Amino acid sequence: MRVTVLGCGRWGSFLSWYANKIGHEVMLWGREESKNYQNIVHNRTNEYLRLPQDIRLTNGIVDAIQFSDIIFIAISAQELRGFAKQLNSMEIANKTFVLCMKGLEMESGKRLSQVFIEEIHSSVNLAIWVGPGHVQDFVQDIPNCMVIDSDNVNTTKLLVDSLGSETIRFYYGQDLLGNEIGAAAKNVIGIAAGMLDGLGYASLKGALMARGTKEIARLVKTMGGNELTIYGLGHLGDYEATVFSKHSHNRRFGEALVKKETFEKLAEGAATVKALLRLSTKYDVDLPICEAVDSVISEGNDPKEQLIKLFMRPVKFESI
Amino acid sequence: MRVTVLGCGRWGSFLSWYANKIGHEVMLWGREESKNYQNIVHNRTNEYLRLPQDIRLTNGIVDAIQFSDIIFIAISAQELRGFAKQLNSMEIANKTFVLCMKGLEMESGKRLSQVFIEEIHSSVNLAIWVGPGHVQDFVQDIPNCMVIDSDNVNTTKLLVDSLGSETIRFYYGQDLLGNEIGAAAKNVIGIAAGMLDGLGYASLKGALMARGTKEIARLVKTMGGNELTIYGLGHLGDYEATVFSKHSHNRRFGEALVKKETFEKLAEGAATVKALLRLSTKYDVDLPICEAVDSVISEGNDPKEQLIKLFMRPVKFESI
Repeated sequence: MRVTVLGCGRWGSFLSWYANKIGHEVMLWGREESKNYQNIVHNRTNEYLRLPQDIRLTNGIVDAIQFSDIIFIAISAQELRGFAKQLNSMEIANKTFVLCMKGLEMESGKRLSQVFIEEIHSSVNLAIWVGPGHVQDFVQDIPNCMVIDSDNVNTTKLLVDSLGSETIRFYYGQDLLGNEIGAAAKNVIGIAAGMLDGLGYASLKGALMARGTKEIARLVKTMGGNELTIYGLGHLGDYEATVFSKHSHNRRFGEALVKKETFEKLAEGAATVKALLRLSTKYDVDLPICEAVDSVISEGNDPKEQLIKLFMRPVKFESI
Repeated sequence: MRVTVLGCGRWGSFLSWYANKIGHEVMLWGREESKNYQNIVHNRTNEYLRLPQDIRLTNGIVDAIQFSDIIFIAISAQELRGFAKQLNSMEIANKTFVLCMKGLEMESGKRLSQVFIEEIHSSVNLAIWVGPGHVQDFVQDIPNCMVIDSDNVNTTKLLVDSLGSETIRFYYGQDLLGNEIGAAAKNVIGIAAGMLDGLGYASLKGALMARGTKEIARLVKTMGGNELTIYGLGHLGDYEATVFSKHSHNRRFGEALVKKETFEKLAEGAATVKALLRLSTKYDVDLPICEAVDSVISEGNDPKEQLIKLFMRPVKFESI
C-alpha cells in the first residue's frame, strides 16, 4: 500500500524507513527550509538511519497528501493546530490520518486528536500510534510492542494489519483518551526521572514509577477514560524507553536541568506538563509530580527539595 | 526501643545497622555455623557495611527472642516454616514479628505470613516489610520509600512510627495478600528482565513491566486482594531495584542464565516462580511470563524463543 509521512525529524524519517522496509510505497514530506529535510535530500541519511532510494522525498504538501490514503503525521505536537488548518485546502476527505506524536496542546490542554478534529472540516479517519521503542533499537532489528488506537475499530484493524512486523508488534488500543494522555504524560515522568538521575537518586525511580502511574491514572479516570490504560503499553510500557534509557530526550533534559548543563534537543514533556496542569485544574485532580516538575522548569525551584519533598513527605496510607 | 533481628545475611545485617542508626537498641542473631555470622563476629563487617560495636551479636536464639518484643525475621524464605516451628518452645506470646523477606513457599505456594501463622501456636502480632531499596544505596544515605503491611492496623502504625527516618519513608500497606504476592513476584519479573538484558533486548523491559504487572495483578485480584496493590510500592515500585539495577540478584541471575555464566548468589525468584505456578493452577489464572521463566530455568528451554514468543505473538487487543 501507499503511505505518506509528514515530518522528517527523528521519528518521521524512521516511520518512512520502517514503512518502506515492510514493503509499502512511501513518500516522505518535509518543509523545504527545514534542516532535517535539506539534510535528507542531500545525504539520504541522518544521525539514526539511511533512507533507501525508493522512498520518495517531497517538500510539496499537496503532492504528499495526494500520494496516498494513509498519512502519518510526525511534526511537533505544538504545531499540529496550525498544520491541520492548512490541510483543509487539500483533498483529504476519507483519508486516514495517524498522529504519531506524544504530546498535548500546551495552551489548551487538549489531546492531539481533539485539536486535529477541531480544525479539519472534512470527514477523515483518525488514529494514534504510541508506545515504546527507540529508533536506535529498531534500526538494529531490536523488536518492541506498540499501540494503535482509534475511536473507529476498523481504522485500528486496518493499521495494525498493514503495519505489524517481526520488529514491531502492534496491540489494539481500546481507550483513545487514556492512550493519548498516557503517551504524552510519560514524557513528564521522564523529565522527573532525569532529575532524580542528576541528583544521584536513581533508586527513587521505583517510587516514581508507582506514584507517576497512579497520578496519571487518576487523571484519566476522572476525564472518563480507563485508569488501567495507564498501566498498559502506552504509558507504563514506555517507561523503559523514557525513565531509564540513555536515548530518552526527556530524561536527558531533566538530568541536564539539574546539573545546569545545556541540552539542545526538544523535550516535549516541558510543554506537556503545562497542558497537564491545565487538566489538573479543569478536572480538579491533584498532579503532584507534574507540579514539582513544572516548578523546577518554570519557576527555577530547587529540584532536590521539590522531588525529595514529594517522595519523603510524612507517612500516609498508600492511596490506591 | 529494643529490636531483635534474626538472620545476618545482606538484608538482616542491614536491618540491624539501620535500627541501630535510628536509635534503637539492637541484637542481631545468626546461626553459629553460618559463614555470615562468623564473619560478622570476627570482623564486624561484610561486603556492604560495618556494624557499630553497640549492636549485640548472639547465636543464642533464646537470648535473641528474649531481648525484645519487636523481632525482624530475615532468613531464606524457604526455611521459614522449619524456623517458625522452633520458635514455639520460646516465650513469644504477644511479641511482634516482622517478616522481611520477599518470597512464597515453593512447595505449597503459600504466603510467608500464612506459613508463619500455621506454625506458631501463641498469639503474636505479624507484619511484613517490603518495597524498594538496596543496602548499597541506604548505607550511602540514598533514601527510598518502603511499605509495612499487616492485617492489624495498630501493628502497622507502631512499626511505621518507630522505623521511619530521612532514609526510609514508610507507607502503610492496606492489602497484606497483595503486598506479599507482589513483593515475591517482582523477583520473577526481575529474572525475566535479566534474560532480556542477556539477549540484548533490554528495550522490551517496557513491555515486560506493562505485561508483568498485569499478570500479577490478575492473580492478586482472583485471590481476593486488590489488583491496584501491584501498581504500588511493593511490586511496581520495586521494579527499578529489580528490573533495572545492577545490584539485583534476580536480574543478574536471569542474565547469567542466558549467557550461560555461573552466578552464585541466591535468586529467590527461582523458588518463587514454582510457587506462583501452583497458584496459577489453584486459582486458574494464566501467568505466561512466569511460565516462560520457569521453562527456561527448569526445562532448559531457549530463552530467546520463550520470551520473544511472549511479546511478539500475534496481535490482539491489549487485555486491560
